Amino acid sequence: MPLHVEILSTGDELLTGQVVDTNSTWLMDRLWDLGVMVRRKTLVGDDRADLDAALRETSGRSDLVVVSGGMGPTEDDLTSERVAAVLGVPLELHEPSLRALEERFRKFGRAMTPNNEKQARFPRGAEVIPNRFGSAPGFAVRIGRAEVVCFPGVPVEYRGLADEWLLPRVAARLGEVPASRLLKLFAVPESHADHAMRPVMDDPANEGVRFGFRAHWPEVHVKWTVPGPGADARAARIAAAVRGIFGDAVFGEAKEELPALVVARLAARGERVALAESCTGGLLAELVTGVPGASAVIDLGVVAYANAMKEAVLGVPAPLLAAHGAVSEPVARALAEGARRAGRATWGLGITGIAGPTGGTPEKPVGTVHVALAGPGGTTAVERLYRGDRERIRKTAAFEALNLLRLALR
Amino acid sequence: MPLHVEILSTGDELLTGQVVDTNSTWLMDRLWDLGVMVRRKTLVGDDRADLDAALRETSGRSDLVVVSGGMGPTEDDLTSERVAAVLGVPLELHEPSLRALEERFRKFGRAMTPNNEKQARFPRGAEVIPNRFGSAPGFAVRIGRAEVVCFPGVPVEYRGLADEWLLPRVAARLGEVPASRLLKLFAVPESHADHAMRPVMDDPANEGVRFGFRAHWPEVHVKWTVPGPGADARAARIAAAVRGIFGDAVFGEAKEELPALVVARLAARGERVALAESCTGGLLAELVTGVPGASAVIDLGVVAYANAMKEAVLGVPAPLLAAHGAVSEPVARALAEGARRAGRATWGLGITGIAGPTGGTPEKPVGTVHVALAGPGGTTAVERLYRGDRERIRKTAAFEALNLLRLALR
Repeated sequence: MPLHVEILSTGDELLTGQVVDTNSTWLMDRLWDLGVMVRRKTLVGDDRADLDAALRETSGRSDLVVVSGGMGPTEDDLTSERVAAVLGVPLELHEPSLRALEERFRKFGRAMTPNNEKQARFPRGAEVIPNRFGSAPGFAVRIGRAEVVCFPGVPVEYRGLADEWLLPRVAARLGEVPASRLLKLFAVPESHADHAMRPVMDDPANEGVRFGFRAHWPEVHVKWTVPGPGADARAARIAAAVRGIFGDAVFGEAKEELPALVVARLAARGERVALAESCTGGLLAELVTGVPGASAVIDLGVVAYANAMKEAVLGVPAPLLAAHGAVSEPVARALAEGARRAGRATWGLGITGIAGPTGGTPEKPVGTVHVALAGPGGTTAVERLYRGDRERIRKTAAFEALNLLRLALR
Repeated sequence: MPLHVEILSTGDELLTGQVVDTNSTWLMDRLWDLGVMVRRKTLVGDDRADLDAALRETSGRSDLVVVSGGMGPTEDDLTSERVAAVLGVPLELHEPSLRALEERFRKFGRAMTPNNEKQARFPRGAEVIPNRFGSAPGFAVRIGRAEVVCFPGVPVEYRGLADEWLLPRVAARLGEVPASRLLKLFAVPESHADHAMRPVMDDPANEGVRFGFRAHWPEVHVKWTVPGPGADARAARIAAAVRGIFGDAVFGEAKEELPALVVARLAARGERVALAESCTGGLLAELVTGVPGASAVIDLGVVAYANAMKEAVLGVPAPLLAAHGAVSEPVARALAEGARRAGRATWGLGITGIAGPTGGTPEKPVGTVHVALAGPGGTTAVERLYRGDRERIRKTAAFEALNLLRLALR
């Protein structure tokens, strides 16, 4: 029998659309990595009857219930009280937690109110879970056959306690933890990725492996989870096969991000890039400079929205603009070369295109983008036609430029 | 008795952390505007037993259950089948829906498979809800005392059907719809907003009004919902009071966004802005050019990360940089004036600061930002010290610049 896990999130703010319960999505993802699919998620408000019913129902069905919220000091925070009521036991003050709370308040120079003492009261018999990420400890009790684990709803605390305390316990209970790998592809449509992966997914050697695709356009993430003995080696063999299928489209693994990868490679080579953007309007510069330490690799970005600025700041020749139009390969090349020159950089990236919603023509429809890279060995350019809205076209174009530079830096 | 509404979202992808159920958050927000707090939300996978149990439980407690997902053509799409099973009625082909599906496939030039016919089968007696946003119609049935409404999970379809069909019905059933208003504040901490609003919230004239604060730093949104007769006039009186409290910090209402407001005001005046960014690294340009039609009001943005570029491209005098350092009011002013000059614009905005995580000093800690606006009447500047991480500091600084321009354009 697979482990039956349910999530019970509590709080009025989750039922009025004010706050999205991102904790549970995060936990589902982590549990899925362990091979566990959460069976049901329930969300109720700060209401005694609703909490009692939800605690009874979820614990009646489950091996493990993860409860969040209602652990604060206010009147609306009911989790400990209702768990105790459902168990028919009193709340008891947990001295070590009270001392930890007092210490915490002293450290931050704030006065502790009688309300805060509430955060050190737990159902009799509960296992208290110390919380070094915030003020409210978590706790675990058994209701029937279910282990019921209660965490604060503050994301950093919830995730910290889950990572430190809960997930290792779940892994230990499962005995064997599957191996998960994730590769990131650039600009491969999800349906194409799925199709291209068929031979790997249908390979009898990969029986029992779970594959998944997640689109974060212009990235697509391919993930697989391998159960059983030798999982790491099997997962690595699949990684090699996936890289074989997608080649250069694979730009990273796990938590690697394209802008940070490009900044790191430039920094390692002691090189710099300068940017000339038209349709992306600063998005490319924002992506590069969003990486801490980017100042080591970028001195200049120019958003040249008007042709006059392409001429004046980046030295794009007026006759070139007149002959080909601003959205053209020659202008993209001139932008890249102009950025490289003006920024006195090793590399220059130029982007020009039509992000829409207006400005398209039959010859140059919305989504037409030219990206060019000028470097020590000359200038290269690509033309693309992206689908989607303004935001998506701009984002894809900016990532296309980063990808062009990534490939040149290999 | 208030209307008891529950949400039941279905789909394995919602339980593995792959997809976040944003539909239900959206619907909760809309229902809250009508004065209805959703009582419980349940999420189950594509499993017959789990779906049946969830349908029975939710309908047994509710006046209205909104079900989403499981309306597609695949084997995993079980909603119609399970609703029919719970009701003990057969599925029946709905001819108008079948013809609409055939028409849709013809229009897109795709072949209709036998699977697709499934999307035209509904439990006997169901009210079919035509879907002009996609292929799968919705439907409504009565289970016990509950009306059970089933929508496709595709966000544009779910929201379209909810807006067109469901919410007007809920409003009609409630008889009286409360008036909701939302004002957006710039850079007012949520705790301060709450405190400053106390006199309005505690005013006996506003008895029964629900107030809420939502932080989207650097914006804080203040929202209130007024029930009963004369709700619109009462809501308007509160709006006047809130504007009185926060004054210039109120930059917009409802769906108004700061970048779009600034672009619209510039366009109406036939004026242009040019940008010179250091620590924000292109974010300000990205915000401005993200507004469709921005090319009418912006020709040039310069990301001058290095001092040499501040000198070469924007004409910031080297002695000024040497005397005051790049992060200083004189340099912010010179950046704004340089942008205005280089971009031949009515207005120039300059930003310089320390976004971190490194680069701070005791005199100029991380978060120190200078923003300047150069215009026909001269140059003004503000100094700020923002808290938070790199992303938050950059975002706040970019919005600060937009806000400075907004105030100048009144």
